[in-house]
Amino acid sequence: MRSGKFITLEGIDGAGKSTQLAWIVQLLQRVDCATVVTREPGGTPLGEQLRVLLLDKSITMHPETEALLMFAARREHLDKVILPALTLGQWVISDRFSDASFAYQGGGRGVNIQKLAILEQWTQDSVQPDLTLYFDVPVELGQQRVSQIKNADRFEQEQSDFFQRVRVAYRDRARQFPHRIKIIDSSLPLNEVKAAVEKILLNILKHG
Amino acid sequence: MRSGKFITLEGIDGAGKSTQLAWIVQLLQRVDCATVVTREPGGTPLGEQLRVLLLDKSITMHPETEALLMFAARREHLDKVILPALTLGQWVISDRFSDASFAYQGGGRGVNIQKLAILEQWTQDSVQPDLTLYFDVPVELGQQRVSQIKNADRFEQEQSDFFQRVRVAYRDRARQFPHRIKIIDSSLPLNEVKAAVEKILLNILKHG
Repeated sequence: MRSGKFITLEGIDGAGKSTQLAWIVQLLQRVDCATVVTREPGGTPLGEQLRVLLLDKSITMHPETEALLMFAARREHLDKVILPALTLGQWVISDRFSDASFAYQGGGRGVNIQKLAILEQWTQDSVQPDLTLYFDVPVELGQQRVSQIKNADRFEQEQSDFFQRVRVAYRDRARQFPHRIKIIDSSLPLNEVKAAVEKILLNILKHG
Repeated sequence: MRSGKFITLEGIDGAGKSTQLAWIVQLLQRVDCATVVTREPGGTPLGEQLRVLLLDKSITMHPETEALLMFAARREHLDKVILPALTLGQWVISDRFSDASFAYQGGGRGVNIQKLAILEQWTQDSVQPDLTLYFDVPVELGQQRVSQIKNADRFEQEQSDFFQRVRVAYRDRARQFPHRIKIIDSSLPLNEVKAAVEKILLNILKHG
């Protein structure tokens, strides 16, 4: 068994991932876990360049192109960041991973789920997160939170029905992998969300 | 049957593809075939941006990342350029296509051929060129021709044994698909290469 764990955070923008990520890292460091914080798409020099292309509103691309680019960035991310860190016994906390491809490219853009599963197998082989925290929030609430922060990127500019489909796909995925993916009700007050996350983390720290 | 054909040119740099491409287009236009000339990686705005990343010597990437990026650019190329042109009855002449992935990422970089076949199926479904002209040249001769022209990119900077493996993989691929891929001995004098290409093209123009 790995001494460090691979934890991914999932959810639409505005679900509160960033806030939770910050204190998950604090919690792990308090118990002396070496942590690597990363994100998708991105996490490597090449991946960050692909992220720029993927989020650029002025670029149009076929949904299957988008999926292939996401998995290209992921292949590099595994090779350069995730697997080396896990080999060293570190904990890896990634803001999004392949569940996001099933949600955004699958649910959002309509890429065939079976085709995404083929790319997932091709790219990751048997590598999966040990734990995925899916922060579930009604689309309207997520969008409300995001709109106050920044200009929308190529994904964020999508309409509400796009994010409804993303949310449905995330929830389907969570139902499919209930042991790995924990659904957190992110519409609750911050301290309640934090308590729910803490409970799950303390459990994985205690029992592995 | 399509009225226009999809023709790809393959070979290592220095095999004379560019010279042949120019007059293949002339020949087709002389018999009133509408032609679209394109290339891989590239051919679309996004594809050309990916080409910059793929050829950049300062960027390192895992061979499987490289393969995924090549097929991402290809998916876009099919959607935006190749399939629309064929639908309009135009001839598409592409400087490289998926055989190059089997040669460079497969033979050159060592990516598993079965895995490349999975990506090919994923990306292209049943779309294949009607004709592929593989310009075969000894590696030393190809490199000699190229070194006089320009600074080497991320692929061209590879050593001779890399291109030997690329050549072997190209020849394997040609043996596997003898009906589609025609091997042209590109070490012959230019007028003989031109005559060999002309014979093949006149045949496809006559018999489809």
